[in-house]
Amino acid sequence: MATKKKSALKKKNACATVKVALLGFGTVGSSVARVLAASKFPGLQLTHIFNRSVERKRTSDAAKAVPASVVWTENIDDILQSNVDIVVELMGGLNPVEGWLRRALASGKSVVTANKQLIAYRGAGLAKLAALHKVHLTYGAAVAGGVPVIPGMSQGLGGDQIARLSGILNGTCNYILNRMESGADYATVLADAQQLGYAEGDPSADVDGFDARAKLCILSRIALHAELDPDAVSTQSIATIEAIDFSYAKELNCTIRQVSRAQRDGSVVQARVAPMLIPLTSPMAWSHGTQNMVVASGRFGGDVVFSGHGAGGEPTAVAVVSDLLAVAQNCGSVALPVRRRSVSSEFVAPHYLRFVVDDKPGIVSSIAGALAKVGANIDSLLQRPGHPKHRLPFVITTEPSLTSTLEKAMTAIARMDCMLERPLCLQILTAEDKPE
Amino acid sequence: MATKKKSALKKKNACATVKVALLGFGTVGSSVARVLAASKFPGLQLTHIFNRSVERKRTSDAAKAVPASVVWTENIDDILQSNVDIVVELMGGLNPVEGWLRRALASGKSVVTANKQLIAYRGAGLAKLAALHKVHLTYGAAVAGGVPVIPGMSQGLGGDQIARLSGILNGTCNYILNRMESGADYATVLADAQQLGYAEGDPSADVDGFDARAKLCILSRIALHAELDPDAVSTQSIATIEAIDFSYAKELNCTIRQVSRAQRDGSVVQARVAPMLIPLTSPMAWSHGTQNMVVASGRFGGDVVFSGHGAGGEPTAVAVVSDLLAVAQNCGSVALPVRRRSVSSEFVAPHYLRFVVDDKPGIVSSIAGALAKVGANIDSLLQRPGHPKHRLPFVITTEPSLTSTLEKAMTAIARMDCMLERPLCLQILTAEDKPE
Repeated sequence: MATKKKSALKKKNACATVKVALLGFGTVGSSVARVLAASKFPGLQLTHIFNRSVERKRTSDAAKAVPASVVWTENIDDILQSNVDIVVELMGGLNPVEGWLRRALASGKSVVTANKQLIAYRGAGLAKLAALHKVHLTYGAAVAGGVPVIPGMSQGLGGDQIARLSGILNGTCNYILNRMESGADYATVLADAQQLGYAEGDPSADVDGFDARAKLCILSRIALHAELDPDAVSTQSIATIEAIDFSYAKELNCTIRQVSRAQRDGSVVQARVAPMLIPLTSPMAWSHGTQNMVVASGRFGGDVVFSGHGAGGEPTAVAVVSDLLAVAQNCGSVALPVRRRSVSSEFVAPHYLRFVVDDKPGIVSSIAGALAKVGANIDSLLQRPGHPKHRLPFVITTEPSLTSTLEKAMTAIARMDCMLERPLCLQILTAEDKPE
Repeated sequence: MATKKKSALKKKNACATVKVALLGFGTVGSSVARVLAASKFPGLQLTHIFNRSVERKRTSDAAKAVPASVVWTENIDDILQSNVDIVVELMGGLNPVEGWLRRALASGKSVVTANKQLIAYRGAGLAKLAALHKVHLTYGAAVAGGVPVIPGMSQGLGGDQIARLSGILNGTCNYILNRMESGADYATVLADAQQLGYAEGDPSADVDGFDARAKLCILSRIALHAELDPDAVSTQSIATIEAIDFSYAKELNCTIRQVSRAQRDGSVVQARVAPMLIPLTSPMAWSHGTQNMVVASGRFGGDVVFSGHGAGGEPTAVAVVSDLLAVAQNCGSVALPVRRRSVSSEFVAPHYLRFVVDDKPGIVSSIAGALAKVGANIDSLLQRPGHPKHRLPFVITTEPSLTSTLEKAMTAIARMDCMLERPLCLQILTAEDKPE
């Protein structure tokens, strides 16, 4: 509190131009150049661009937005040994980027980055280094692209005690699940998403939840003041969701979304990234296409919702350039003490259990028995007509239970002869948003 | 750009406690004291509370959250001549508050305020004074209470070019219109709102749009970089909306909300606060109860939505305390050049026209004739069954037209003998949110 931040930038005189280097001239990098060119912010000057095989970039169409004075280079030392004031890192990954950014910070350059993995895994150390050298480290673009969740929460909700975060943090999963809601099947939609450039050739980072997990850990640091080990946050893939699950979800007045959530429970943080049933009345059910959304639930301020375009070159460039302006104007972020917290994936929630069976008498009784054995109460049993007996999908919903408790029962149930697929177990979100 | 802000706060040493005075110990003031007491932010110390008839406040239940060391006073000089670092103004109105805050700023104290009228009318001058004396002036609580729209937009969207703002900025109107949507009539709901403390005895500031107008002008400064004269922004009351309008709106897949909107059109800003028909697919249709919502539409980032509790003691206190933390940590706000802009209330939009007539042959033809005379095209004509011929409400929707053009026709139509009430003319919001 009342920390007096004296930045290296600060020592320059008031009218000096702030020199900016871009590391990476892909989709986001070229969008940043375009946004800077379109708005001509006085005092911000793009001076260097680093990229591997830089000649290919320098002669590309995207380079037309870049001033002729810019130095293009594939030698990182041209940046790190230059007099640039701010290094903008848009390359991604931990290596070699972490080392480069450490060198930049240590030599008095501020850093603006969109690198969620780097900030989730190494953010605390980098922030310390930035503080030591009295420079800025900002990463508004690392979570939810163009949606100003990080500045909104750090500057605007610092006065609250945020008890819970829930969000849709991966646009690819949201696109896939939205399309499935309209009847398409997973494999088809994934292929479309790959063709549209929404999903990578290897979609695991998105669909298995690792991308969202990194973002959730960054938000936990800012909103819950809790430093989490990303690897300790459990994830569940959306790849096992089937079209039939959307039909059953609809009967329950729900839809299905990949939800990232974290909440304080004493000294532990409960955190998880998983597909969940979401009531249609929840703001999270309203997210369309590749939209992102974050709901921060505060002790004093109640639920605050942020939503918008979470990805894409230009929305992400908005976050990068907004950070650049803040750093250039030496506007620090509110810093509150952050503690390392251990992570639990235990949530008490009602659950949705979907089975696909070769129907025989006694199946429901056996499943009910397995659930009773772990103390889980059945809330409803749903079975839609029109499916063949030999491949019958049906659903059981439970009263609030620990996921780990149910998973014990599910392991036993999965071994039953009649089970044609591994049963699916999803948490159901209960109304976190209580409109008056 | 690259302005180097040197605050008076800055000169203090790093571990010094920042002293805070509250002006006003009503609902918000006492909530601020409670939030500060609950979170015990190190380095922030509440030292003074000013209120008229202060003894009544000092002995109230709300005062129990206030540390015993606090000086209670009804003499403003006790604050202005003290060594407090930050003055928090929660009294409202222009006089005498403006003079007091000018004295505070001039004597090197930063100011945090929730006073929307003051900031809308006098914000530019106060900001200049703050800059001159190298102190902070922040007003995150002046718009949308606990929803961090101001910090989110100024720190997180500075890199975009915001073309359009639309919002639900008055919780009282939103409460009234939500209740009317469920079938209640205006007078009953207004009386309830007054009893619940959501509406004042004289509800004009809320229902006639003056409260929302001040907030819209503040947001225009931050998002559109446009300084508007609040008195030049046209307003339309929600008091003429009737239950029947919600029925017709529903037939059009819409609901009705008080919408504040502003958009750049060259060197002019089109701005208006009025009840509007909102498509049910718009995020603004989702706002419940007293919720506030702001949609900022950027050239690069697309639509960004902020929503949450816009009023009430504790949500507003969150905004105040968040500003206090930012000021105490000397975190400035991104400042971009703001220009004074003239205001137009002209929007091209489809319109909803509702008439209540003593039905006779030829009425529709006369109305259609009056509309044709000004060049307005009819899009649809709606007449619900079940109303008596001698008091028949019906609706015409038009293709996109200028409101001023339609109002000319409406003035002529209002003079027709068969008109039992002044006809109602509402703009219809067209999809500003284009989900992929």
